[in-house]
Amino acid sequence: MAVYTEVSDEALRTFLADYALGELLAFRGIAEGVENSNYALKTEAGDFILTLYEKRVDPAELPYFLGLMDHLAGRGLACPTPVAGRDGAALRSLAGRPAAIVTFLPGVWPRRVRPEHCAPLGRALAELHVAGDGFAMARPNALGPAGWAPLLDGCRARGDEVQPGLVAELDAALAGILAAWPRKGALHRGQIHADLFPDNVFFLPGADARPRVSGLIDFYFACTDLLAYDVAVCLNAWCFEPDYAFNVTKARALVSAYDAVRPLSPAERTALPVLCRGAALRFLLTRLYDWTHTPPGALVTRKDPLEYLRKLRFFGQAGSAAAIGA
Amino acid sequence: MAVYTEVSDEALRTFLADYALGELLAFRGIAEGVENSNYALKTEAGDFILTLYEKRVDPAELPYFLGLMDHLAGRGLACPTPVAGRDGAALRSLAGRPAAIVTFLPGVWPRRVRPEHCAPLGRALAELHVAGDGFAMARPNALGPAGWAPLLDGCRARGDEVQPGLVAELDAALAGILAAWPRKGALHRGQIHADLFPDNVFFLPGADARPRVSGLIDFYFACTDLLAYDVAVCLNAWCFEPDYAFNVTKARALVSAYDAVRPLSPAERTALPVLCRGAALRFLLTRLYDWTHTPPGALVTRKDPLEYLRKLRFFGQAGSAAAIGA
Repeated sequence: MAVYTEVSDEALRTFLADYALGELLAFRGIAEGVENSNYALKTEAGDFILTLYEKRVDPAELPYFLGLMDHLAGRGLACPTPVAGRDGAALRSLAGRPAAIVTFLPGVWPRRVRPEHCAPLGRALAELHVAGDGFAMARPNALGPAGWAPLLDGCRARGDEVQPGLVAELDAALAGILAAWPRKGALHRGQIHADLFPDNVFFLPGADARPRVSGLIDFYFACTDLLAYDVAVCLNAWCFEPDYAFNVTKARALVSAYDAVRPLSPAERTALPVLCRGAALRFLLTRLYDWTHTPPGALVTRKDPLEYLRKLRFFGQAGSAAAIGA
Repeated sequence: MAVYTEVSDEALRTFLADYALGELLAFRGIAEGVENSNYALKTEAGDFILTLYEKRVDPAELPYFLGLMDHLAGRGLACPTPVAGRDGAALRSLAGRPAAIVTFLPGVWPRRVRPEHCAPLGRALAELHVAGDGFAMARPNALGPAGWAPLLDGCRARGDEVQPGLVAELDAALAGILAAWPRKGALHRGQIHADLFPDNVFFLPGADARPRVSGLIDFYFACTDLLAYDVAVCLNAWCFEPDYAFNVTKARALVSAYDAVRPLSPAERTALPVLCRGAALRFLLTRLYDWTHTPPGALVTRKDPLEYLRKLRFFGQAGSAAAIGA
C-alpha cells in the first residue's frame, strides 16, 4: 500500500502553480504501488498521477527514469509521460521529497491473467525494447547477477527460518545460474523495464473485444541490461497459474508475439531458461530479504518468497527453451 | 488504508454491464477510507467511486445509507449520488460483497485545517441537516450514548495498558455525561453525518479564492440523532490544533455559519458542551477498543485514543457554550 507522505493543500497549490495545468480539481491517494506515494490528480487540464519518491528510490536515478519514460512516450509507447513545469523541469520537489507529475493512462490491470493477455503483453514488451533504442542514458541493474550474492548474504542469518535448507539451496542455485549466465556481449543489451508484473500493465478491450495493452507503468526498476532478461521476468510473472503450474500456452503466446516485433536471436532463445532462473532468483531474494528484515508490526505487505522458490525449481528442471514456450 | 477486496476484471465487466455507464476506461484502488474497499472508476460516462462494503458494514443498513445520499443529493447537497443499474437498483453485489457506484465529487480534503475552512464547513453541515428533513427512514446511532457503556466494558480488561487509571477516568466521565445528556425530546432530531472529519469534506477555492465546500462524503456512520451532536463532532474534529489547543476562532466560525443556515435553539446551544464531551468520548472509546483489540501485526493504522482523552478533558473543563464558540 502506498501513500506514505501526506501533502498539505497549501503545499500542493504552491507546487501546482509551477505548472500550466489550470486549477486543481481533485487529489486522492492511490492504493497501488509499494515503493512511492502516488496520488490521482485531476486539474482543468485532465487526469494525472503525482508521485512523491520515497526513500527506497535514489534521487540521483530519477533523471534516468523520467528521461526514459519521456523517450519511450516520444517514440509512441503508451507509458506515463513526465509533465514539465513552466521552467521545463519535470523533476521537482514537494513535501520534502523529489516529486513528478506524469500523464494518467487509461486501462485496468488484470487481476487474473488469461492467455489472451499474453500476446499483447509480449508485443508491448518488444515495442518497449525497440522504442528504448537510442536513449542516451544508462543505469546498471542493481538487482542483476552482480547484486544477487550480496542480497543472499543479507538473508543468510535468517533465511532458513522461512524454510529449512533454503540458504544452501539458493547458494547452489546462484552458483549454477552464474556459471551458465550469458557471456558479456553475447546477448543484446538495452533499456529494460525489469518489473513488468501484471499490476504494471493496463489493458482495455479492443474493437474485437480482446484485451489490448493501453499502458505500461512503474519504470522505477528500469535499467540497462539484457533485453531477453525482461522476457524472462515476464515468463515468471505472467505464466504461472495460482497452483504454480507453468502455463506453456501463455508462455508461447508471450514469446511469439514478442518475437514478431523484435525477433529473438538464437543465442537469446537458448539463454532463456537460465535467464528465467535468474529472474526467479532475483524476486525470491528481494522478497526473502524483505521477509527477514521487515519488523512484524510494519505496515507493509510482505510477499511470499517461496512462490519464487517454486518458480526457480521449475525453471531449473525445465531444460530446453522449447519447454518454456520459446 | 482501504482496498481489502480484489475485483477480477471479468467480474468488474459483468458488474458494469448492468449499468448504462458505457465502456470501462480505468479502475484504481483508492488509499483513503478505512472501512470499505474504494475504487476510482472511470467510464465513458465520467468518473465514479465504486465501493465494496466490507464486514464492518451491516448489509441491512445499506438501504438507509444509499437512500440518505440519494435524498440529500436530490435536495441539492453536494454528496455522492448512488448510481442505479439498468433495473433501478443502486445496491448490487460484486466479488461476494454488497457494492454500489456513486458519483465522483471534485475537491481536496484539507490536510491542515485553517480557520477559513470552518465557516464553509458549518454552513455545509447545516445544509445537510436541513436537506435531511423529510427522509423517511431512520437509523439508531449505534455509537450514541446507549452504546458507550458496552464499548467501555469491552475496553475494561486492557484499557489501563494505554494509560494507567484510564478506565476509572472514563467510567466517571461516562456517568457525568449520561447524567447531563439532554432529555428525550428536548433537542431537535434528524439525519446526521456523525463522522464529518476533515477527510470527509472536500473543498475547492471559490471565485474569491477562499475555500468552498465541494462535497461531503462517507455517510456510513450516518444515523438519526440529535442534530446538535453533529456540530459537537465537528468541534472535536476541526477545532483543535496539533498541540491539542482548542481554537475558539475556528469554533466560532463553524457555529455561527451553521447558525446562519439553521439557527441553533437555546437548548441546543446550552447542551453543546455535554454533546462535545459525548462526541469526544465516542471517538475515544472506538479508538481505544480498536487499540486494545487489534493484533500488533495487523495491516491497520491504529489511531491514538489519547488524542480524544485530551479533548474530553478540555470539554469537561470548558464550562459554558460561549467558551467553545457557541
